[in-house]
Amino acid sequence: MSDGAVAALVTRPSRRSTHSVTLEDVARHAQVSPQTVSRSIRSPQLVSEFTLERVRNSISETGYVPNLAASNLASNRSMTVAAIIPAVSASVFADALQGLEEVLAPEGYQLFIGSTSYRPGHEEELVRAFLGRRPDGIFIVGTDHSPNTGHLLRESKVPVVEAWDLTDAPIDSVVGFSNSAAIRALVEFARDRGYRHPTFAGSFQTGDFRALARRASFEESVDALFPGEPVRVVDSGTATVDYDTGRRLLTETRAAHPETDVLMFASDVFAAGAVLECARAGISVPGDIAVTGFGDFEIGRHLVPTLTTVAVPNRQIGTAAGELLLARMTGGTRETAEIDLGFSVVARESA
Amino acid sequence: MSDGAVAALVTRPSRRSTHSVTLEDVARHAQVSPQTVSRSIRSPQLVSEFTLERVRNSISETGYVPNLAASNLASNRSMTVAAIIPAVSASVFADALQGLEEVLAPEGYQLFIGSTSYRPGHEEELVRAFLGRRPDGIFIVGTDHSPNTGHLLRESKVPVVEAWDLTDAPIDSVVGFSNSAAIRALVEFARDRGYRHPTFAGSFQTGDFRALARRASFEESVDALFPGEPVRVVDSGTATVDYDTGRRLLTETRAAHPETDVLMFASDVFAAGAVLECARAGISVPGDIAVTGFGDFEIGRHLVPTLTTVAVPNRQIGTAAGELLLARMTGGTRETAEIDLGFSVVARESA
Repeated sequence: MSDGAVAALVTRPSRRSTHSVTLEDVARHAQVSPQTVSRSIRSPQLVSEFTLERVRNSISETGYVPNLAASNLASNRSMTVAAIIPAVSASVFADALQGLEEVLAPEGYQLFIGSTSYRPGHEEELVRAFLGRRPDGIFIVGTDHSPNTGHLLRESKVPVVEAWDLTDAPIDSVVGFSNSAAIRALVEFARDRGYRHPTFAGSFQTGDFRALARRASFEESVDALFPGEPVRVVDSGTATVDYDTGRRLLTETRAAHPETDVLMFASDVFAAGAVLECARAGISVPGDIAVTGFGDFEIGRHLVPTLTTVAVPNRQIGTAAGELLLARMTGGTRETAEIDLGFSVVARESA
Repeated sequence: MSDGAVAALVTRPSRRSTHSVTLEDVARHAQVSPQTVSRSIRSPQLVSEFTLERVRNSISETGYVPNLAASNLASNRSMTVAAIIPAVSASVFADALQGLEEVLAPEGYQLFIGSTSYRPGHEEELVRAFLGRRPDGIFIVGTDHSPNTGHLLRESKVPVVEAWDLTDAPIDSVVGFSNSAAIRALVEFARDRGYRHPTFAGSFQTGDFRALARRASFEESVDALFPGEPVRVVDSGTATVDYDTGRRLLTETRAAHPETDVLMFASDVFAAGAVLECARAGISVPGDIAVTGFGDFEIGRHLVPTLTTVAVPNRQIGTAAGELLLARMTGGTRETAEIDLGFSVVARESA
């Protein structure tokens, strides 16, 4: 659009929520019928390339914005996907949202996001609010929901992808990895490296069911793989997942369980805080105490020493869920799916 | 809801996008008229507390979900806010989204998000797609937009908050801080600490206008505050903002400009990568080279040495923008505003 055209348009009066440029304006500009403009927007495959080009140019020149809310209500599709995550600012979920967005946006879908702040009651409220907006698909972190939330999602008949864990009773489809198996593999790794006194540390009272699954798996794995060894867990309660909490968990572990030779954290963020504290305090890692994390954040590759951890497919969870939802929403398949993206133990210098 | 009620409801047949539980079902369950149910949802202040409680219980028991799309079309309000950000997974924007969500969600607004991937052409597409969904408000990162994007936003008459920088010509309201003034303050700080050969390093070809503003401010500030000193900038081009790029920028700076006594990074992420590389390579910070960052990420407080940086109000940008939008959307005020949240130089061990 030329600057002249912009200047001409910005002086045109317009009302709130009622865009001044109408379908009829576009039709007049393109010298076609309003029906042709409408058809070009809704069913471009039915319109000749020549006409489509004219209409596209006129839409651009006039600044016309079709009212998708009205159009979607007529077509019974909202072209939206709701994403329900525990926290917007946690980078693991942000990575998945980015993956989801990259798959859905090119197909014309927009993402609605909402965060539960790890409160199950809030999850139900959010699900209700989102369903009221008739999304074409739903992405939800976790496989543990209240009976009401599960019921609302099932009853809605909207394609749903649960993510970040696996379950025997999915609402619909599920994309993730086994948090239990990942911790079991890490405990096995520690035993094979010759460690004898493992301790697990994290924040386990925050409503994060995946953290609880990791803790339960640690307890079972120690019972199975370290016969006779007590199960040691250091719990920071509801503390946030940050470097400060990691430092604190290190200090508490050394005070409560000085025999610990490998300290296994429920997140790389805790582990990084602990490794940096060790550097400052002159504690040798892994000489005095070995450290492992969970998540394979970029920081782990740069710490001194580099961090042994479990790599989990955050971004791929988003892209796989996006592709699954797309297939369901566009009628390509009616099948539900369980996609196990796996994990891997990444051995580096810290353990 | 009891488990029995759930079991009864999940066996009821329902169709895609047409929820089986209707307003009439709720009315029958509550033994009131459909009009009363409708009024309870739209105008609860007009309904007695006793009736409201009955209707609420029946909504919960039946699992009824009102169709907000139809209701919003009737009321000309969508109860949605669009957020247009450069990248979902960058933590600074995720922090602002979290702030925005915390303010808007309790008032019943849902966030639509879209990311431009720092491509101006994509920004216009996104704005067009979002406007088609008739949001009640728009949050957009940055103050540099294409003429078409600016025109579409102005013409829409929807309240808009631009964020993360300040501008003399806002579309509507703006919430941020001066990137230029922040870098100027940091260069002054370096001069006052006695450094003589500053170098600035970052990724400046990614479409990030704020990074370019910081670079331009560095160049002007060195001219003004270090007379006779050449302006040294190390540019990683389009490299992503991560620890690896920070390491690489450190190596390139030491090769190209060995006289550098203070290396000023455009982001804490680069600075953290460089400080960790120095720890590994046995380079003393600040003895051999001082380092500063930008953004005050949590990692900076835990690095050895801790990082000198500029604290900027990421989360507050989200909450302030949310409050501003709320006031505009609910008709509380028609005033546009410019909110400068400021910044502060945080002096720590690295410079």
